[in-house]
Amino acid sequence: MPEFPHLSGALVFTLFETTAVIAAAVAGMILAANKSMDIIGAYALACINAFAGGTVRDLLLDNRPFYWMEHYLLLVVILALCIPFVYSARIFHLASEMHRRSVVIDAIGLALFTMTGTGIALHQGRPLIVAALMGVVTGTMGGVVRDVVVNEVPDLFRPGGLYATASFTGAIVLIAGIQYGMQYPEASALGIVVVVALRLLSLRLGVTVPAPQWAARDRAGEP
Amino acid sequence: MPEFPHLSGALVFTLFETTAVIAAAVAGMILAANKSMDIIGAYALACINAFAGGTVRDLLLDNRPFYWMEHYLLLVVILALCIPFVYSARIFHLASEMHRRSVVIDAIGLALFTMTGTGIALHQGRPLIVAALMGVVTGTMGGVVRDVVVNEVPDLFRPGGLYATASFTGAIVLIAGIQYGMQYPEASALGIVVVVALRLLSLRLGVTVPAPQWAARDRAGEP
Amino acid sequence: MPEFPHLSGALVFTLFETTAVIAAAVAGMILAANKSMDIIGAYALACINAFAGGTVRDLLLDNRPFYWMEHYLLLVVILALCIPFVYSARIFHLASEMHRRSVVIDAIGLALFTMTGTGIALHQGRPLIVAALMGVVTGTMGGVVRDVVVNEVPDLFRPGGLYATASFTGAIVLIAGIQYGMQYPEASALGIVVVVALRLLSLRLGVTVPAPQWAARDRAGEP
Repeated sequence: MPEFPHLSGALVFTLFETTAVIAAAVAGMILAANKSMDIIGAYALACINAFAGGTVRDLLLDNRPFYWMEHYLLLVVILALCIPFVYSARIFHLASEMHRRSVVIDAIGLALFTMTGTGIALHQGRPLIVAALMGVVTGTMGGVVRDVVVNEVPDLFRPGGLYATASFTGAIVLIAGIQYGMQYPEASALGIVVVVALRLLSLRLGVTVPAPQWAARDRAGEP
Repeated sequence: MPEFPHLSGALVFTLFETTAVIAAAVAGMILAANKSMDIIGAYALACINAFAGGTVRDLLLDNRPFYWMEHYLLLVVILALCIPFVYSARIFHLASEMHRRSVVIDAIGLALFTMTGTGIALHQGRPLIVAALMGVVTGTMGGVVRDVVVNEVPDLFRPGGLYATASFTGAIVLIAGIQYGMQYPEASALGIVVVVALRLLSLRLGVTVPAPQWAARDRAGEP
Repeated sequence: MPEFPHLSGALVFTLFETTAVIAAAVAGMILAANKSMDIIGAYALACINAFAGGTVRDLLLDNRPFYWMEHYLLLVVILALCIPFVYSARIFHLASEMHRRSVVIDAIGLALFTMTGTGIALHQGRPLIVAALMGVVTGTMGGVVRDVVVNEVPDLFRPGGLYATASFTGAIVLIAGIQYGMQYPEASALGIVVVVALRLLSLRLGVTVPAPQWAARDRAGEP
């Protein structure tokens, strides 16, 4: 992990990171509910959605211990969250309601995971393209593994608002900021703003990555 | 691996472990038959079902060498088993017949994999919640990877008899036993009994993990 | 990597390896087009198809750094290739046309990946059965991960021309050659010829692995 010169920066960072993990876990539980899984499925999807992105990154960068093993208390917290979520109708409805309005929370999660992933790779002196990709992997692979496990083509790979593109752009902003002499906290704050803004604006304005030329073929109804 | 004070304990353990691996391999072959795969698919699913749980655990705990690399003779044995299984109608029917009645074998496999996974993590001084989860991962992830590869939502995540819950409870029993001063062989024997009993009783009595509140919604036919 | 006594051998090898990676990447892009994915999906499938086999092998053998991290320029090249592929109708059609006729290129890729995988495992002194399996893993797992991600039962596990069998046979030829005193370049050249010949002949002559006995049952329409 990059070192923080100011304690307050590290504190804010930890707070944000924990928020992102919990939000991703709850999103995993909601998907488990939609798939009529039992509590085991809910716990598994919660952990996958919260930790798989960082775990894939750590496997690829050969980092140990994994985040969830160092912060294993989060495994207990998520288990504790599963029980009311699964068995209390009130809390389930509250969570799904919040989740439906949670594009902002999700975008912040994407941004934070991107910044931690890129930062860790930079700190280890990886090539810049690898660092940017590790940010995208950390931000998006949780959802990809989750979708593969529940047997769907990953959302990420299908047309929609900017997601991986927002993450990649934010990673580039962080890298550029550090190359031009900014400290990690400032550069990552800038990166977070860019990711969240790109994600939310693309959803509001209906912007997607430019349509591949085969989209035209699909619309024309050719085979 | 935890050390065994008595040679006989280690011998029994190895015998049980090998049995569990072979039984899981045969179960993988039977699934390949149901999916009309060829012998390559049969061998791949056999190896995945037998070794994927332990391999995921070893990746997560950063253990090397992997079990199947240390005991690579098992790779040859499973390859040798595939050939009569795939090409001899008699052996195929015998195996499927045995497998259909093999809830007991499967439950023992789950129990043994749980005990080895938890034991290895304990031996490395991991946090207790991580040790219990590693037991569950070792016992169940083979089946999850197998189901994902053949393109089904993992059985494990859908309502049914106790499976991960039985594994988790047995892991807790092993951990508690060791915390209270029991030796590994005794504590794991106790854990095995608990896993097998929970699994078989839950199947016989129709016990599942308590139904999530969304099950009610599903039964009522709401969207 | 095994050491090459002659520089020219290493040069030819690198050239072949790069060709195999690029061909696999383009094949991944074409699949993304058939699945109507966007450019993110195209880039992800290209990287998965090109690098997942080697990455799984390196995870299993605990090799670092990964191939794509050492040769990260390839990540940039594939990204650059995606853009014309996705947005230029002419290049897309050219690539799909080439791909349709590319059984030869694909067979060479399989052969090369098999030789590098087996060679690396041999160089590390792994057991011979493990070395042969690592060759097959390197040659075939890219396609398996790709198929799992796009939610299909892996092609590899279904009846068809010889594929894993060709790869396995070539790995055995390489291993036998080295055991009988050949140098790596000569033995692997022999192995490449065997893989390509087996693959192409099996397709031309309609040879498959001998039909499992359950195929008879399927043909008879039994359940």
